[in-house]
Amino acid sequence: MIFGSDNWAGAHPAIARRLLEEAEGFSAPYGASELDRLVEQKFNDIFEREVAVFFVGTGTAANSLALAAVNRPGGVAFCHREAHLIEDECGAPEFFTHGARLAPVDGENGKIDPRNLLAEIKRFPPGFVHTGQPMAISITQATEIGTLYRPDEIMAIAKIAEDMQLPLHMDGARFANALVALNCSPAALSWKLGVDIVSFGATKNGCWCAEALVFMRPDMARDLPFIRKRAAQLFSKTRFIASQFDAYLADGLWLELARHANDMGRCLQNGIRSSRHARLAWEAEANEVFCIMDKGRADDLKRQGAVFYAWNPPHSGQALLGENEVLLRLVASFATQAGQVDRFIEILG
Amino acid sequence: MIFGSDNWAGAHPAIARRLLEEAEGFSAPYGASELDRLVEQKFNDIFEREVAVFFVGTGTAANSLALAAVNRPGGVAFCHREAHLIEDECGAPEFFTHGARLAPVDGENGKIDPRNLLAEIKRFPPGFVHTGQPMAISITQATEIGTLYRPDEIMAIAKIAEDMQLPLHMDGARFANALVALNCSPAALSWKLGVDIVSFGATKNGCWCAEALVFMRPDMARDLPFIRKRAAQLFSKTRFIASQFDAYLADGLWLELARHANDMGRCLQNGIRSSRHARLAWEAEANEVFCIMDKGRADDLKRQGAVFYAWNPPHSGQALLGENEVLLRLVASFATQAGQVDRFIEILG
Amino acid sequence: MIFGSDNWAGAHPAIARRLLEEAEGFSAPYGASELDRLVEQKFNDIFEREVAVFFVGTGTAANSLALAAVNRPGGVAFCHREAHLIEDECGAPEFFTHGARLAPVDGENGKIDPRNLLAEIKRFPPGFVHTGQPMAISITQATEIGTLYRPDEIMAIAKIAEDMQLPLHMDGARFANALVALNCSPAALSWKLGVDIVSFGATKNGCWCAEALVFMRPDMARDLPFIRKRAAQLFSKTRFIASQFDAYLADGLWLELARHANDMGRCLQNGIRSSRHARLAWEAEANEVFCIMDKGRADDLKRQGAVFYAWNPPHSGQALLGENEVLLRLVASFATQAGQVDRFIEILG
Amino acid sequence: MIFGSDNWAGAHPAIARRLLEEAEGFSAPYGASELDRLVEQKFNDIFEREVAVFFVGTGTAANSLALAAVNRPGGVAFCHREAHLIEDECGAPEFFTHGARLAPVDGENGKIDPRNLLAEIKRFPPGFVHTGQPMAISITQATEIGTLYRPDEIMAIAKIAEDMQLPLHMDGARFANALVALNCSPAALSWKLGVDIVSFGATKNGCWCAEALVFMRPDMARDLPFIRKRAAQLFSKTRFIASQFDAYLADGLWLELARHANDMGRCLQNGIRSSRHARLAWEAEANEVFCIMDKGRADDLKRQGAVFYAWNPPHSGQALLGENEVLLRLVASFATQAGQVDRFIEILG
Repeated sequence: MIFGSDNWAGAHPAIARRLLEEAEGFSAPYGASELDRLVEQKFNDIFEREVAVFFVGTGTAANSLALAAVNRPGGVAFCHREAHLIEDECGAPEFFTHGARLAPVDGENGKIDPRNLLAEIKRFPPGFVHTGQPMAISITQATEIGTLYRPDEIMAIAKIAEDMQLPLHMDGARFANALVALNCSPAALSWKLGVDIVSFGATKNGCWCAEALVFMRPDMARDLPFIRKRAAQLFSKTRFIASQFDAYLADGLWLELARHANDMGRCLQNGIRSSRHARLAWEAEANEVFCIMDKGRADDLKRQGAVFYAWNPPHSGQALLGENEVLLRLVASFATQAGQVDRFIEILG
Repeated sequence: MIFGSDNWAGAHPAIARRLLEEAEGFSAPYGASELDRLVEQKFNDIFEREVAVFFVGTGTAANSLALAAVNRPGGVAFCHREAHLIEDECGAPEFFTHGARLAPVDGENGKIDPRNLLAEIKRFPPGFVHTGQPMAISITQATEIGTLYRPDEIMAIAKIAEDMQLPLHMDGARFANALVALNCSPAALSWKLGVDIVSFGATKNGCWCAEALVFMRPDMARDLPFIRKRAAQLFSKTRFIASQFDAYLADGLWLELARHANDMGRCLQNGIRSSRHARLAWEAEANEVFCIMDKGRADDLKRQGAVFYAWNPPHSGQALLGENEVLLRLVASFATQAGQVDRFIEILG
Repeated sequence: MIFGSDNWAGAHPAIARRLLEEAEGFSAPYGASELDRLVEQKFNDIFEREVAVFFVGTGTAANSLALAAVNRPGGVAFCHREAHLIEDECGAPEFFTHGARLAPVDGENGKIDPRNLLAEIKRFPPGFVHTGQPMAISITQATEIGTLYRPDEIMAIAKIAEDMQLPLHMDGARFANALVALNCSPAALSWKLGVDIVSFGATKNGCWCAEALVFMRPDMARDLPFIRKRAAQLFSKTRFIASQFDAYLADGLWLELARHANDMGRCLQNGIRSSRHARLAWEAEANEVFCIMDKGRADDLKRQGAVFYAWNPPHSGQALLGENEVLLRLVASFATQAGQVDRFIEILG
Repeated sequence: MIFGSDNWAGAHPAIARRLLEEAEGFSAPYGASELDRLVEQKFNDIFEREVAVFFVGTGTAANSLALAAVNRPGGVAFCHREAHLIEDECGAPEFFTHGARLAPVDGENGKIDPRNLLAEIKRFPPGFVHTGQPMAISITQATEIGTLYRPDEIMAIAKIAEDMQLPLHMDGARFANALVALNCSPAALSWKLGVDIVSFGATKNGCWCAEALVFMRPDMARDLPFIRKRAAQLFSKTRFIASQFDAYLADGLWLELARHANDMGRCLQNGIRSSRHARLAWEAEANEVFCIMDKGRADDLKRQGAVFYAWNPPHSGQALLGENEVLLRLVASFATQAGQVDRFIEILG
């Protein structure tokens, strides 16, 4: 009953085996192998256009280097107040951008509200030297609280980005989960809506360590090879990342895994909905479920082997919790088994 | 005939299989799993003392974070003029230390000459605000040009480090190769000589991606957890690094692999020594062989499938090369096969 | 009718003349002159203890270097949401701290509310690597909106700082104005309450360019000489700063000038209070007055030569402004003449 | 007998008085005053073209921000091995460029040798990710050891800069001294030769604190306003810098002062040339004289009130010093009096 996070899971067998195959033989290092080329080409196919792809080792790196690539002196990036970028990276984005600022934007359901976004951006008048200057907008899909931006919601944000001449970045640590939930193609959920850069996560969804930074307009990534090397993210044996993606992207495995994770999330959600001892904090739309229960019951579940974490109630502030209640995050992954979900719901009662 | 670098190799089967085993099941992320603990304990055993171990993804990261951990405002780190740190990291050490300086020190055979080191350090008088201030000394073992520091040579440098109250870092990207060549234990080649921090490389010697930053005095690493997270080097599924080390360090596999690489280097060296068409640039002591030959012959070897790189003659300056000659680096690895060496020597003639 | 800011003023004649005297002769540069020593001693006298003083050129530098001196990897500094530090420095604090974060804290009247402060700090659990780690608290005295922390209010914040082992910094760009308004001695308004570092501003209050960074505990400033030099804030002819302070601090001139500025602020405030066409936004306590009037009337005042700026309504959010109304900041300085205030109030009507 | 440095001098009376005049009245801060505009226009006149001028407080800032303005990820700036930039800034250029590297280039007489420069630049192949990438060339005029680049020498370096598409920066801390010694106009000694950016120093030559960063092509300075603000170098009362320049540049005062300093340098040099107890280390060409004498005699001069510093023999290495000899730097300034020079020479004997 591991619902701590999707990174508690290991790796999907097909991906693990693919890595084993790759162990033999020799290959040009630092991203210069044929396999690197091949997998980069796969990204072109997936996104239905020529993209610039950079493999990195962690999601922290992908997000931080995306901002570093588009930063300017005094730069300010706008993201949702609860974004991973701002809440869980120990200041890595600030570090990799030499001190750019992350400006939190409020919005319901973990999503940036375009009106708030515009108001925040306007606090930084063009050319005004005393404030910083806007340099990027970043959205998270699926969001940090398990909800999804609908295409039109992204388009509204992309419109602002375009008007303000700001690049639009998408933290896609759970991009696959969003794609299958919304039944969209990668192109339809990214550049066709105006997204410029995607942090394409695969680690949470079945890989060991495979993240890709994808620039829809390769010219935006001109300095990235140097930024990445300087950031200690150019792996010598990159083919070990490339080969994970090779298996991950083959025959739609990645979407299948995400679908499973979402399905398990839905089972959890249904179970909680029908429980007498817990209620949903809000509607889950991908593989993360947030629910509220008595602290005692949560402790009891833990004692019986369930793993999950308490979640801070969102800043937006509605008084979600009653006395002695806790807000919990339950995350399903590609490796979650239906039996584990059933057991959890059974114990919950 | 791949002698381009030891990172052209893939992974040793035992390590690859160990990874496959680890694919199943669930485990606490971010270095909190039992396996992480277990492998950290192994490092205590190997170094015969309680050390602080931090897994990172690249050697660039290990070296850069080591310096970041001991840096001070205006800090200057001293390393050999040909050190990887200064020559091949695109400024990553400067980036991770917020602009510390790497001061090159000259010395024969790729090794810091203690007299030069002392003279360089003295250019930065204590408390003098216009120069920077010394903050670390870094040596590379085996060196960037395939030679080895003898224990007494390290001790001489460590003596200076101690007198000047500077931490002594060892870039051990090829630490295992040095250990077996010198027939020393890890403890005997590190803290017993006065080394404070080791970048413990395993990627080049049979892993896919496994580097460890080892602090001999854990209190020196107090800030490292935050430095590492901020540096995007805290992997969510760290156990994939831990499990590589687990197999790598089991039953002396790591030393066996290094021994093989060194043996293959010796075969290359012997072949070149007896060749009429090439000569050794200097005596190799580990798994890297540097030789000189006619440019035409080098091209011919390449045409027949050999992979290697030209090397810039060392700054120290002796006129090594005749007209039309090139200096080449040939690197043997755990995966190098004797037949390939033989073939290379045969073609060389 | 210049109420744009206190830095629209020039320099007080006594200070300007003191500079002229200093023009002749020779003197050791980089802060090593006798005058530097003498003025540093004056700070000891003023603060009634041995302090470490560092002259710098701008308030931005003073504030940023204060944070740099106490920063740690992943550091987070807490300040009021409307603090100059966070609103008007183009990210300088982030730059000088290599990307530390400024966490805004809410509170009425431009002052940090201790309960909010504690709640914000608690969002960064000790040792938890995914958030950053608290590293400092900064308060502004007088505040950015012309109010004042009372001694007991500072003490309540200092108590939190002490409990959390965080240094407490005071942005004293208008420290003198606060001293005279509260009738406190420098010691009584700083270290006796628990303040560790003061940005001691003099530029706004009669100097041309004179800011001092004062550490109440000199050991906290050990690295500051290097931080300052690296930050390009070690002036070769520092005595030009020292001599300004020399005149500024002589015979209580600095307090006299601040008293005048506050008096002029009070005149402005009284005038506005009795005006039919404007009202006070909140009670002014030092030399800055915030008032609300019709946009048309504000434009009219400008046309007749008044200089002032519109101010963004505080985030705390109460709907201060009616339709077509603007919130204005009026700043009086040591150079403000009573006649100009009268004229302004007369035109205002 | 103060020959410690040109920054031991105070300020020229005309400049000091001009500051006093400026003390009165009100003026727009942060570089927005009419005087700022007026003085900026003067720079256009002096350079005979439209330039972008930025006032800053220290030479360290001017040099560091120049490099920051043209930096790129992994950037490397080339300067002479003995340049102030690399030797005396405590790593400020590295700090302001987020860790760019300063690559030392050798050359006789304190001047970059174009062949060495080209060889150094070629060590950073275009697009090669493991080294850094060239981003600027910086020369010092007059050089750190009192010599001068002739126009054709600058042109040779500018040719390389152009071929390599690198901006050429000139550290002009003693620009005026070079102008009068070479009898060149500012335009003829800068952009007409290919210089792109000048750190235009005035502090050493009669101001208190006045440095200007001058971009010959304003588009190169697009980000500078933000870089400067973030660097804490935007002074609120900038007119105090502008007014110094106003007097400094009026009626050729600046050139007159530099001429005097150079004359005094020549007197020192002539005196040393005819002394039996000292000899010139090399030929001085501006206001800095380097000589060699017995340590005992140097101590004797100090006892009798002379102020000067020992200088490290240049790296280029010729064995300049005999046993018990010291290399001294003597700096004349606008304020040096002939009588003091005479006295020094007399004591020297």
